[in-house]
Amino acid sequence: MNAFPIAPGHEISGFVRAVGNKVNKFKVGDKVGIGCMVDSCGKCDLCKKGLENYCPQMTQTYGSPFPEGRGKNFKGAEGNHTNGGYTNAIVANEKFVFSIPDSMDMKYAGVLLCAGITTFSPLNRHIKQKGGGKGKKVAIVGFGGLGQMAVKIAKAMNVDSVTILSRNEKKKADADRMGCEYLVHTNEEELGKVTRTFDVVLDTVAAPHDIAKMTSILNVDGTWVLLGAIGQPFEISALQLLFNRISIEGSLIGGVPETQEMLDFCAKHKIVPEYEVIDATKADAHFKALMAGTAGADRKVIDISTLTAMFG
Amino acid sequence: MNAFPIAPGHEISGFVRAVGNKVNKFKVGDKVGIGCMVDSCGKCDLCKKGLENYCPQMTQTYGSPFPEGRGKNFKGAEGNHTNGGYTNAIVANEKFVFSIPDSMDMKYAGVLLCAGITTFSPLNRHIKQKGGGKGKKVAIVGFGGLGQMAVKIAKAMNVDSVTILSRNEKKKADADRMGCEYLVHTNEEELGKVTRTFDVVLDTVAAPHDIAKMTSILNVDGTWVLLGAIGQPFEISALQLLFNRISIEGSLIGGVPETQEMLDFCAKHKIVPEYEVIDATKADAHFKALMAGTAGADRKVIDISTLTAMFG
Repeated sequence: MNAFPIAPGHEISGFVRAVGNKVNKFKVGDKVGIGCMVDSCGKCDLCKKGLENYCPQMTQTYGSPFPEGRGKNFKGAEGNHTNGGYTNAIVANEKFVFSIPDSMDMKYAGVLLCAGITTFSPLNRHIKQKGGGKGKKVAIVGFGGLGQMAVKIAKAMNVDSVTILSRNEKKKADADRMGCEYLVHTNEEELGKVTRTFDVVLDTVAAPHDIAKMTSILNVDGTWVLLGAIGQPFEISALQLLFNRISIEGSLIGGVPETQEMLDFCAKHKIVPEYEVIDATKADAHFKALMAGTAGADRKVIDISTLTAMFG
Repeated sequence: MNAFPIAPGHEISGFVRAVGNKVNKFKVGDKVGIGCMVDSCGKCDLCKKGLENYCPQMTQTYGSPFPEGRGKNFKGAEGNHTNGGYTNAIVANEKFVFSIPDSMDMKYAGVLLCAGITTFSPLNRHIKQKGGGKGKKVAIVGFGGLGQMAVKIAKAMNVDSVTILSRNEKKKADADRMGCEYLVHTNEEELGKVTRTFDVVLDTVAAPHDIAKMTSILNVDGTWVLLGAIGQPFEISALQLLFNRISIEGSLIGGVPETQEMLDFCAKHKIVPEYEVIDATKADAHFKALMAGTAGADRKVIDISTLTAMFG
C-alpha cells in the first residue's frame, strides 16, 4: 500500500474563486493555471534564482507530503499530502499560480503547464537564449505529447529544421503534417546519414532505449537533453562525448518565472497543443488505452464540470 | 602489426630553426611549442571557429596519416604519417605552432600543450568565461598529471575550493601540499556529505569507474567533464540528471586560439606543472613504471639533446 494514494492532475487551468487577504497577484475571476508544483521553501539559492523545481523542499501538486512545518497556508494540509487537480477546487500559494494570457483558450492552457514547460525550458536555454533558432537543427526522440509540444515550440523559435526520431514509420504522417523531417533510428544506415547534424536533441522517451548508439547525431557542442525519467541506469560512450564535445543533460519541468515566460511565449506564437476535451466518464478508458499503447499522442483534457456531475 | 608504428611525443617545446618563405608568425630563434595537432582542413566551420581539435581531418602529431591530398607542406609527408616529437627537429604548419611567453621556462612549456590545454579548456568554458571562480567549487577525479594541472589552473581562476576525489588515501599528502580538499570516493558516507556541492567536476580517469554513483555531488546546473577516453561504455542515471539538471560532457584538448590563450594564462599566473627533466636513456624505465602504476604524477620531460647523444 502506498503511503499516499495517487490523486493525479498537474496540468490545471481555471478561474480564481477566492483569494487570501495577503494575495496581490490575482483577483477573483482571473484566468489562471497550476502546474506540477504548489510550494517550495522560498529561501534557498535555487528558489531565489527561480529554480523552485529543484528546491529540495519543492511540493508537487499531487501525492507529495508537505515538509514538516510547512503547508500552514493550506488549510488542513499540515502533515498531509497534496491531492492534485482532478477536483473542482484547489488551494495554492499565489507564487505557484500562473496567469493565463487573455488570448489563450482555457481548454488547452493547462496542458502547457507540464508538457509545455518541460520542452520549453531546454529549448529556451539552448536555442532562444543562445542567439535564437536560425542556423540550428533540433531532433526529438519520441513523438508523444512532449514531442509534439517540442516541435511547436522549436518551430516558433525559428530553428532551421525539426527531425522526429522514432522506432518505426507509424508516426510519419503526423510528422509530415507538422512539417518535420522523420528518421527511423533503429535503421543504422539512416542514422549514419545524420552524423554530427543536430545542435539539440530532446529525448522524450521514458523507457530504456539505446542512447549510446544515437549520440553521434549531435553536432560538436551539441546537447542531448533527457526529459524522460528512465528508471534504470543506461550506457553512454565516453569516446563519443570526448571526440565531439557533446553533453548529455537532464531537465525537469521549469521554475516559476520560466513557466510564466513559456505561457506568454505560447500565447504570442499562437502555440496550441494537440488536445481533445473529454468527459470525466471517459478518463478510465483513455487511461487504459495509454497503458496498452493504443492511445494517440494528443492530451485528453477533462472538463471538470463532468467530474462534479459524476460525484455530485 | 600496426599500420603506423607508434612514435609518441606531443608536448614539445623548442626553438625555431628555419621558416618557410610564407611564414609570418615566427622567425628563427623564437621560443615555440607544438601540441597534439600539426594540421587540420582549415576550411570547415570547426576550423573557422578555432575548434581544429574537432575537425574531421585534424592530423595528430604522431601516428596520424595525412588525409589524402594534404600534407603537401610537409616534405616527404604526403601519403605518410606523423612521427611525433621525440626528435631533434619537427616540421609543422605555423598555425599549429605556439608562442612560448618570455617568462615561461622552456623546460616545462611543452607539458602545458596537452595536460595544460586539456584541463584549461573545460575550466575556461565553465568557470572563467562564466563570471570567474568566485563562489564556485571544483572537484577533480583522479590526481595524476591532468589532475595536478587542473588544480593549479582552477586555483588561478580563483575558485572557492578544489577537492580531489581519489580511490584511497595515498595521494592525500600531495593534495594537502597543493591546498586541496581530499575525499575518498569509494567511501559512500563521505560522498554523501558533498551532495549537490560542486559546480564543475573534471574527471581525469581513463579507466572504467563508477560515475553514476558520484554524479550526486554536482550542484544543480553542474557539469561533469570527462577528459579520459574510457574505452568501454559506462552507465549513468537519468534520474540523477533530471532531478538536478546536471550534464555530463566530454572535452578533448582544445583548439588553436584557446591553446595560445592557455599558455598566456599560465605565464601570467606563474603556473608551473609538476615535472622533472630526465635523460632519454631513462625514458624506458619511466614508461615501465607508468605501466606498472608505480610512477609519480609528475611529467618526465626528456632533454632531447640526450636523445641525439644516444642515436648520434
